[in-house]
Amino acid sequence: MRLYSYWRSSAAYRVRIALALKGIPYECVPVHLVRDGGQQHSPEYKRLNPGGRVPTLEVGGQALYQSMAILEWLEETHPLVPLLPADPIGRARVRGIAQLIVSDIQPLQNISVTNYLRDEAHWASEQTAAWLRHWIGRGMAAVEQALDDPATGSFCHGDSPTLADLCLVPQCYASRRFGVDVAAYPRIAGIERRCLEMPEFRVAAPEAQPDAEVAAR
Amino acid sequence: MRLYSYWRSSAAYRVRIALALKGIPYECVPVHLVRDGGQQHSPEYKRLNPGGRVPTLEVGGQALYQSMAILEWLEETHPLVPLLPADPIGRARVRGIAQLIVSDIQPLQNISVTNYLRDEAHWASEQTAAWLRHWIGRGMAAVEQALDDPATGSFCHGDSPTLADLCLVPQCYASRRFGVDVAAYPRIAGIERRCLEMPEFRVAAPEAQPDAEVAAR
Repeated sequence: MRLYSYWRSSAAYRVRIALALKGIPYECVPVHLVRDGGQQHSPEYKRLNPGGRVPTLEVGGQALYQSMAILEWLEETHPLVPLLPADPIGRARVRGIAQLIVSDIQPLQNISVTNYLRDEAHWASEQTAAWLRHWIGRGMAAVEQALDDPATGSFCHGDSPTLADLCLVPQCYASRRFGVDVAAYPRIAGIERRCLEMPEFRVAAPEAQPDAEVAAR
Repeated sequence: MRLYSYWRSSAAYRVRIALALKGIPYECVPVHLVRDGGQQHSPEYKRLNPGGRVPTLEVGGQALYQSMAILEWLEETHPLVPLLPADPIGRARVRGIAQLIVSDIQPLQNISVTNYLRDEAHWASEQTAAWLRHWIGRGMAAVEQALDDPATGSFCHGDSPTLADLCLVPQCYASRRFGVDVAAYPRIAGIERRCLEMPEFRVAAPEAQPDAEVAAR
């Protein structure tokens, strides 16, 4: 398998954690989202990924795109270690929490959006920062409330990581990067801490990637 | 089952189509996204739906939120009529196309975002209209490209509707509403036309809902 990835992309980070938890070796192909005006926009890359975004997972000549589609495919084809519970209501809860992040937070903090606000709307950096804090804060509050549930364990759902945790940990990284205090959400902060105790989450982290630009952080 | 819905919500529309295709009867509870400052923000509703958005599907005392989580739950618990193909690569393609809409278009056209641009950023309506056309146009182009694939049939994937079509038809409705010409995307336009020939898509349409405000269109 070949993963087209960018070290700081939340969506790529989700897939990297899944590959690590399932013990699947892969080749990492960095796609630089800033350099050259964004390498994800090249015609060659867009043949693999019509949205012009990371990640893409190439497998047997097929290019899979959209992180949630890739995660579900990994779950269906590599069921061990499972990242969804067995019961349908539990699966709906895990996917619901994941989508609170994937649909309601990440799209609004995406680099394509902040580029638009800077280049088309001519927003000052403080205006974009307020936008980011607004959407991330609203979304983190929604996740924190969703976690106020007996089904929450030491992870978002029960006592082992699921797709919800795979989305939550990258969101915590992005939240912090954009100035939102994760500690203000104690359930989220506790789960993030427990995830980051696991080596599978740590090898997937942005700073552990071959394309990490540590000086840029 | 009880569906908390709003006639013009893309996300609720997706679930209404799935319920119709699977022949599942349900009670529709309208949640007005504009009136009273948005009924989805009420504390009572947010106990069901932590994100404060529609839809919510209530089933056996459980409240399921996020349209994609609800659709996957329906697929797992009511496998007939199937809305995902049987093969994992096909399932990944269907989910990938669906998420091109769910993650990359809909969040940027959402009423919460256009309200923010109007109320916080003080954008003129033409500025918001340009924003909407930008993101919808980019997203529709990505879907159109994804459909340039031998796996596309009379529907997004093969010759029967899948989750991708359930996301595409509501997006076409929203695209048109926000001034984007669907006919500029001929593969999308053809699939939309074939979907809307099916009564299950038509009963789920915004104008067929009990809370439709036809004069407002």
